[in-house]
Amino acid sequence: MLAANALFYAAFSRRDLPAMEALWARAEPVTCIHPGWNALIGRDEVLQSWRAILGNPASPSVESSGESAHVAGDLAWVLCTEAAPDGEVQLVATNLFRREEDGQWRLCHHQAGMLAKATPQAARTLN
Amino acid sequence: MLAANALFYAAFSRRDLPAMEALWARAEPVTCIHPGWNALIGRDEVLQSWRAILGNPASPSVESSGESAHVAGDLAWVLCTEAAPDGEVQLVATNLFRREEDGQWRLCHHQAGMLAKATPQAARTLN
Repeated sequence: MLAANALFYAAFSRRDLPAMEALWARAEPVTCIHPGWNALIGRDEVLQSWRAILGNPASPSVESSGESAHVAGDLAWVLCTEAAPDGEVQLVATNLFRREEDGQWRLCHHQAGMLAKATPQAARTLN
Repeated sequence: MLAANALFYAAFSRRDLPAMEALWARAEPVTCIHPGWNALIGRDEVLQSWRAILGNPASPSVESSGESAHVAGDLAWVLCTEAAPDGEVQLVATNLFRREEDGQWRLCHHQAGMLAKATPQAARTLN
């Protein structure tokens, strides 16, 4: 699923909507939490958000780094850092994949949130 | 796993470390992303963070709301909103559970991130 994770960020950076759609699970459950947003629930709602993001010229491209993969049967999650090319904004993400019937790992949940620049005490006191 | 999710927030609010430790999966993989932090990997590192948080008198208690549960075999994730009792700070969380050999749903991953107060355009332009 590290390969699928790399394809996710490639599709994001290239604004490649067909590739992005192909990466998301065909079967429910499918959910997504963009930074600052409420949770999106259901494949239609999630893909609609990606159409809006990839179609927005102001959306930054995103590079991932520091990937770690964690497998539990037919589900697995990749944790990684996301950064715009200028490195100004850093986020940390959970990408949850499910191995579908055709053997392909596809995204069934994504959450990205801001990474504190210096892990301040204020952030440490929140769970 | 909604019951386990409720126990997680009860343990958090009561600062009940034994209850918190019992809620986390006994077997790896176990990971956690606190708001603003880098990813913590491994049961020892994750539980150490909870000992620090629950032992910190400045840590707020947290109430959850708006839970939705999403099941895929022996894994399931609950999405919910977290808020301190004063409602000033709101977060959105992913709580990933695995059904272990004894039939109990236990946490294997948690990510919480800040919820934007008015979903500003700045947040919408980040993935």
